[in-house]
Amino acid sequence: MARIAVVAGDGIGPEVVAEARKVIDAVLPGVEATEYDLGAARYHRTGEVLPDSVLAELAGHDAILLGAVGDPTVPPGVLERGLLLKLRFAFDQYVNLRPSRLWPGVTSPLATVKSGEVDLVVVREGTEGLYAGAGGALHRGTPAEIATEESLNTRHGVERVVRDAFARARRRERRKVTLVHKTNVLTHAGSLWARTFEAVAAEHPDVTTEYQHVDAAAMFLVTQPQRYDVVVTDNLFGDILTDIAAAVTGGIGLAASGSINPDGTYPSMFEPVHGSAPDIAGRGVADPVAAVLSAALLLDQLGHADAAARITAAVSAELAARGPDVALRTAEVGDRIAAQVAA
Amino acid sequence: MARIAVVAGDGIGPEVVAEARKVIDAVLPGVEATEYDLGAARYHRTGEVLPDSVLAELAGHDAILLGAVGDPTVPPGVLERGLLLKLRFAFDQYVNLRPSRLWPGVTSPLATVKSGEVDLVVVREGTEGLYAGAGGALHRGTPAEIATEESLNTRHGVERVVRDAFARARRRERRKVTLVHKTNVLTHAGSLWARTFEAVAAEHPDVTTEYQHVDAAAMFLVTQPQRYDVVVTDNLFGDILTDIAAAVTGGIGLAASGSINPDGTYPSMFEPVHGSAPDIAGRGVADPVAAVLSAALLLDQLGHADAAARITAAVSAELAARGPDVALRTAEVGDRIAAQVAA
Ligand SMILES: CC(C)[C@H](C(=O)O)[C@@H](O)C(=O)O
Ligand SMILES: CC(C)[C@H](C(=O)O)[C@@H](O)C(=O)O
Repeated sequence: MARIAVVAGDGIGPEVVAEARKVIDAVLPGVEATEYDLGAARYHRTGEVLPDSVLAELAGHDAILLGAVGDPTVPPGVLERGLLLKLRFAFDQYVNLRPSRLWPGVTSPLATVKSGEVDLVVVREGTEGLYAGAGGALHRGTPAEIATEESLNTRHGVERVVRDAFARARRRERRKVTLVHKTNVLTHAGSLWARTFEAVAAEHPDVTTEYQHVDAAAMFLVTQPQRYDVVVTDNLFGDILTDIAAAVTGGIGLAASGSINPDGTYPSMFEPVHGSAPDIAGRGVADPVAAVLSAALLLDQLGHADAAARITAAVSAELAARGPDVALRTAEVGDRIAAQVAA
Repeated sequence: MARIAVVAGDGIGPEVVAEARKVIDAVLPGVEATEYDLGAARYHRTGEVLPDSVLAELAGHDAILLGAVGDPTVPPGVLERGLLLKLRFAFDQYVNLRPSRLWPGVTSPLATVKSGEVDLVVVREGTEGLYAGAGGALHRGTPAEIATEESLNTRHGVERVVRDAFARARRRERRKVTLVHKTNVLTHAGSLWARTFEAVAAEHPDVTTEYQHVDAAAMFLVTQPQRYDVVVTDNLFGDILTDIAAAVTGGIGLAASGSINPDGTYPSMFEPVHGSAPDIAGRGVADPVAAVLSAALLLDQLGHADAAARITAAVSAELAARGPDVALRTAEVGDRIAAQVAA
């Protein structure tokens, strides 16, 4: 049976993770879960973000389920770079997977988009680009200060994520992949991405392809989100585009993600796209759906496609039954979904 | 009287620029315009993108009005880097100004947003960041290829554009500036932007400030565009955010922009956000409103605030009178606006 590590984290993290675990236990009894105390609270208590010993322990699990980390009291970058990105890079989680569906019963902020019409997945590169941490500063704090951030892109890194996107497209109905970049300005990285994309596309004549500049894609996600099936893009563009995709499909409260190491050398990590939302923490009102859907992605990755599908169906039913102005209770949502998947 | 250079460019460029000039002539007779033949057509004919002699001539004008350049037959980057970005950098156009308003009569794709509710301006940095062209590649075309793109940020460059944003906010009703960056990942550049922003904010106690990560801002532009007044951000983030802002306010067909050198050392350049749209070129159906509004920004920059306001009012009337499914004719739109501003 699968052994997963659970990082509940800060703010609403523990609340939504509790529901995700409830659902996992209901759909697939026997999954072994070990909790790890990481995040803002531990940082404040001990000064530690991610000790090497914990990293080593996490590596021994089949997957990681994460709630949310972060708090306004921690300086920007400390937990992001020290924990989230550290895990993505250390565990070579090069496929950052972010599906967006407009579920039945969920209203898009877009007037003309109807339930069921949007069903896309962004395959965001997770281990390169501007997230590499290759930057620096000189003359800090003086009028002569310069600060740099470098986007690093390798054929190795680009090709593997592009291949993953095509493989996913083949398993979907529309079989379409959109490459998003900014080839007209970022000519070096853009050329690498475009050439790699073309080479992989040539091996997949059954997959339709298109290219869009990131600014155009950001616009089309608002005016025509229906047009996308699989989108493959770099780390930073993927960060921005997935928040737009989440917004047009009902908000980040519903958006799940997986930081996946497809090779299985390291554990993959699954987490809601939303943050720790300190403003509503502790009140039992956070929507656990994103965490529950992240658990479905986790089980799917571990080979339990069936259990994953049952969770997804239960979430779909839950959302369809919800009124637009429901006053939701975190635990009740989890209870209903758990009951449904167990049935 | 003002002397402007006109680069009509490719595709629908000449069509929309003709209307913008019609309107300028009607509102402020006597503006001297000199046409420059630049863009895809010239590139194909002569291999030239922007000869030094032309750059020198352009420098002698008070402002530049540009239609659109670009064509699928030109490799990505050639005209963007060689012409548009070359001008922005050579003429130190560090304020890339992009207002977005939801005009009366224009329907937002967002169900809950009503005319008049969105009125924001993005002050996008125009001469630094990832647009610096600092990148390269090694082992091109081999499995060992790496490609880099570097974001260069200086205190000098950041401070001047942040100051411009605060100055603009002071002239607006809400007096609010939102800084958008990604300080939690791009820690070096993010820190420079955040510290500079705070320092300038301290000098402007009458201006409200906030900070948002770029992914959150992309989302909020979709769910709550009303919340923004002035947004200041870096070159690439500004590129993406302004297309979202355009999308939620009726599309890039209505979006104007100015690449401004506020010091007046060099001419500023004004152009629609839309591209050359080769698919509809030559048919007289392109909406000239973005070009006309760009002309208003141009006149405003040259000190003709009154003429600019008259154009803006005429555009507002034109849009309010338009039905949702109007079959518009480029020249007729221009005629109507010109008649209105002359009246
Ligand atoms: C918290 C931050 C480092 C992270 C990112 O930028 O990847 C988040 O925005 C996300 O999308 O998972
Ligand atoms: C054409 C391209 C270089 C340009 C940019 O990225 O700045 C365009 O997208 C814009 O927004 O003006």
